[in-house]
Amino acid sequence: MSKNLTKRADDYSKWYNELVVKADLAENSAVRGCMVIKPYGYAIWEKMQAQLDKMFKETGHSNAYFPLFVPKSMFEAEEKNAEGFAKECAVVTHYRLKNDEERPGKLMVDPNAKLEEELIVRPTSEAIIWSTYKNWIQSYRDLPLLINQWANVVRWEMRTRLFLRTAEFLWQEGHTAHATKQEALNETVQMMNVYADFVENFMAIPVVKGVKTANERFAGAEETFCIEALMQDGKALQAGTSHFLGQNFANAFDVKFTSAEGKQEYVWGTSWGVSTRLMGALIMTHSDDNGLVLPPNLAPIQVVIVPIFKSEEELEKITEVADELSKSLRKLGLSIKFDNRTTQKPGFKFAEWELKGVPVRVAIGPKDLENGTFEIARRDTLSKQVVNKDQTVAFIENLLEEIQKEMFNKALDFRNTHITEVNTFDEFKDILDNKGGFVSAHWDGTPETEEKIKELTKATIRCIPLDRKEENGNCIFSGNASNGRVLFAKAY
Amino acid sequence: MSKNLTKRADDYSKWYNELVVKADLAENSAVRGCMVIKPYGYAIWEKMQAQLDKMFKETGHSNAYFPLFVPKSMFEAEEKNAEGFAKECAVVTHYRLKNDEERPGKLMVDPNAKLEEELIVRPTSEAIIWSTYKNWIQSYRDLPLLINQWANVVRWEMRTRLFLRTAEFLWQEGHTAHATKQEALNETVQMMNVYADFVENFMAIPVVKGVKTANERFAGAEETFCIEALMQDGKALQAGTSHFLGQNFANAFDVKFTSAEGKQEYVWGTSWGVSTRLMGALIMTHSDDNGLVLPPNLAPIQVVIVPIFKSEEELEKITEVADELSKSLRKLGLSIKFDNRTTQKPGFKFAEWELKGVPVRVAIGPKDLENGTFEIARRDTLSKQVVNKDQTVAFIENLLEEIQKEMFNKALDFRNTHITEVNTFDEFKDILDNKGGFVSAHWDGTPETEEKIKELTKATIRCIPLDRKEENGNCIFSGNASNGRVLFAKAY
Repeated sequence: MSKNLTKRADDYSKWYNELVVKADLAENSAVRGCMVIKPYGYAIWEKMQAQLDKMFKETGHSNAYFPLFVPKSMFEAEEKNAEGFAKECAVVTHYRLKNDEERPGKLMVDPNAKLEEELIVRPTSEAIIWSTYKNWIQSYRDLPLLINQWANVVRWEMRTRLFLRTAEFLWQEGHTAHATKQEALNETVQMMNVYADFVENFMAIPVVKGVKTANERFAGAEETFCIEALMQDGKALQAGTSHFLGQNFANAFDVKFTSAEGKQEYVWGTSWGVSTRLMGALIMTHSDDNGLVLPPNLAPIQVVIVPIFKSEEELEKITEVADELSKSLRKLGLSIKFDNRTTQKPGFKFAEWELKGVPVRVAIGPKDLENGTFEIARRDTLSKQVVNKDQTVAFIENLLEEIQKEMFNKALDFRNTHITEVNTFDEFKDILDNKGGFVSAHWDGTPETEEKIKELTKATIRCIPLDRKEENGNCIFSGNASNGRVLFAKAY
Repeated sequence: MSKNLTKRADDYSKWYNELVVKADLAENSAVRGCMVIKPYGYAIWEKMQAQLDKMFKETGHSNAYFPLFVPKSMFEAEEKNAEGFAKECAVVTHYRLKNDEERPGKLMVDPNAKLEEELIVRPTSEAIIWSTYKNWIQSYRDLPLLINQWANVVRWEMRTRLFLRTAEFLWQEGHTAHATKQEALNETVQMMNVYADFVENFMAIPVVKGVKTANERFAGAEETFCIEALMQDGKALQAGTSHFLGQNFANAFDVKFTSAEGKQEYVWGTSWGVSTRLMGALIMTHSDDNGLVLPPNLAPIQVVIVPIFKSEEELEKITEVADELSKSLRKLGLSIKFDNRTTQKPGFKFAEWELKGVPVRVAIGPKDLENGTFEIARRDTLSKQVVNKDQTVAFIENLLEEIQKEMFNKALDFRNTHITEVNTFDEFKDILDNKGGFVSAHWDGTPETEEKIKELTKATIRCIPLDRKEENGNCIFSGNASNGRVLFAKAY
């Protein structure tokens, strides 16, 4: 199977597209730019959802659900937000089809069923949610309001790629309302940290925490915090964002509260989201030329057991041992698959589970039965080891933890060796062209310089890292003064 | 609080609408016909989802996700299905807004961004899913395909009511493909049984299992199985449907497979769904003039603890005891709330948690501290009891089970006393007008008679019960021969 996968070194982009389809994660649908998330891909997304949802609830948030549609007049209320999304909106204009009399058996839009006001399919839900919050918030006692929504959103992108950029995608969007600026800022930072925790400890992807420049900020936000990851091809990927909205949406939708002192004040807001785009980050951080490599914490199947047999009788004996092992591993909460298909050879199965990224494979053959052993292979390093039956459960439990850690460390090493400090624009271009990764450079702080660098190199400022040191220097482009470095990169 | 709730006997419909809003379950949004599901309502829906999802997975199904939009040409491929949904479709015709030059700061649909082909917002996903299945199914080895999707759908209903009938609603839709007719039929029946199991054992609502008449069948199905519940006002509510699709969608989308014998055959299909409409059934089956009554298996808060105190010092002592109790109850997996607000009096809190349907309330006052007791009240019967501290955990655990059972039994008694056999059309009308409930009557089997009865009485055939006895009789309307009774009712 793996033979058919394009190699990363040959064409990284093609490798990615093929892998997503061949590993049964997703495929393009008949609807332009919309994807079908297949059961195996969806199972990974479900594991992500479950963990994130838990983390949101532990930090005091509740889920709710708001309408798919936003009336145009509501959509345009917060002008910057509207401007930011207007160019990529799906618009519902009619509410009925009728028989097309010129084409029997076919339908046409009924011109008599035109909506009085067009409805926008939500590209994000600030507008509809803040128009609702207006009725929910009267007093400081109603604050903070800490709500999350799991939903689909639509952004009419012209160039789409599975998971990374699709017209419809799945995501969660948190929308919170607070009495004070400081509280809203704390929430924004808290959620960035929740995302970083999740992406690092469950997805095994190291991230840089930072804030976006004005150019890259969410339309309608005062400040956008982000976590940025680095893919194997040296391009950056924005893995999650958390926005401090100031009082922008409260102003636009007239959301005020009576403070403890009896004064009327505008509410402070935040919003934050991660999407099925994280699936793209997961694939591109860890996978190799043989297929997916999944971190144990998110793998739908953590251990696959493959029997090696020549007769029914052998299979029966192996099944007995495999069932016992499965049972013990399931007791630890692990998800196990025993691949006892008789239609496929072991080599085919090995390649298939490698393609699908199952972290640990146990092979059991007649010799193992004799010797009381199992052959245990790990997907990330492709190394194998023979382990005594008695020690297997503890060995696997330990191995899964080790894999999780080592996948993170491997990605961290790669990321760390791909943050390059440069001090001239020539060095800057050289690194971008020949090495890739994050380029740490001085920038004069103006949108104009940022824009020009983007035009010339396609690199954008991924973030101003939160942990950057103060350091006086000169902008690599304009030569003007700067007091700290920012991270540039080409990005997904 | 409860004082403000309209009484069921005065105006059942008003009582329902008020209760949904006052108990913080849902509210109407600014978008015509679309609702906002509020955190408390959504928490109940999440519990339903979790349980159903578990049951779907236990019966071998996987989740996946298909596009929100269906191109018009694909939508119209299965003619009956298209005809059934054409009149209530939201249609996307454009993909961009632009600045409206006549109204500065406002937006308009960009006439240059008209889609070549209109997109229908899915009212149900058979079309998009079967067009996908065509590529997934080649051989009998690819079957059965057992997939479920959790999604939002849109049906442009003209008269909407929170949860019961909304333009957008949340649901799950299972779509399965099989090699044989019998296997597809078995799946259809299995899923009806899964729904019945869930609705009876988690929602505590008894259901009648049956099949729909041709008039009431899902557009595009060969047979629709259903579970029908009875509300307190004597109206029926269809709680779930499971459709045997025959080869209709396989024909429409040319989905064939090579059988084990090497022949090309069309695939057999099923689809099945339940929606946020179940929330309406839950509310209308159990709740009373004081508010919601929730079955313990679905209550987001199962036990609320209310301290009764006059001083900080008393509250502190009660808190200590309450924390201990909470801890012991949480160990049993129960969800507990300690309502220690100092801004509200106990009476206010009692009314609030009654309104919200929390199954068990524990009150702790200074006297209880002295005597080592708790006052335990159950929401369904509004009865109270003083229990010794040592016995409380076991008492509550047992009480929750008892409440779950008794709520079901109460609803079952009501339902059973509201199935009335009649043999004449006069009796039929009399029961509908004066007693309500299901009316069990002979029917001649023709759509014409069914239609006329509906015109005259607003009653429809809810189902032909699966367990009906053979019994010769005469149609109450036409007098023609019939070999068994069907269940009529006015319905939501």
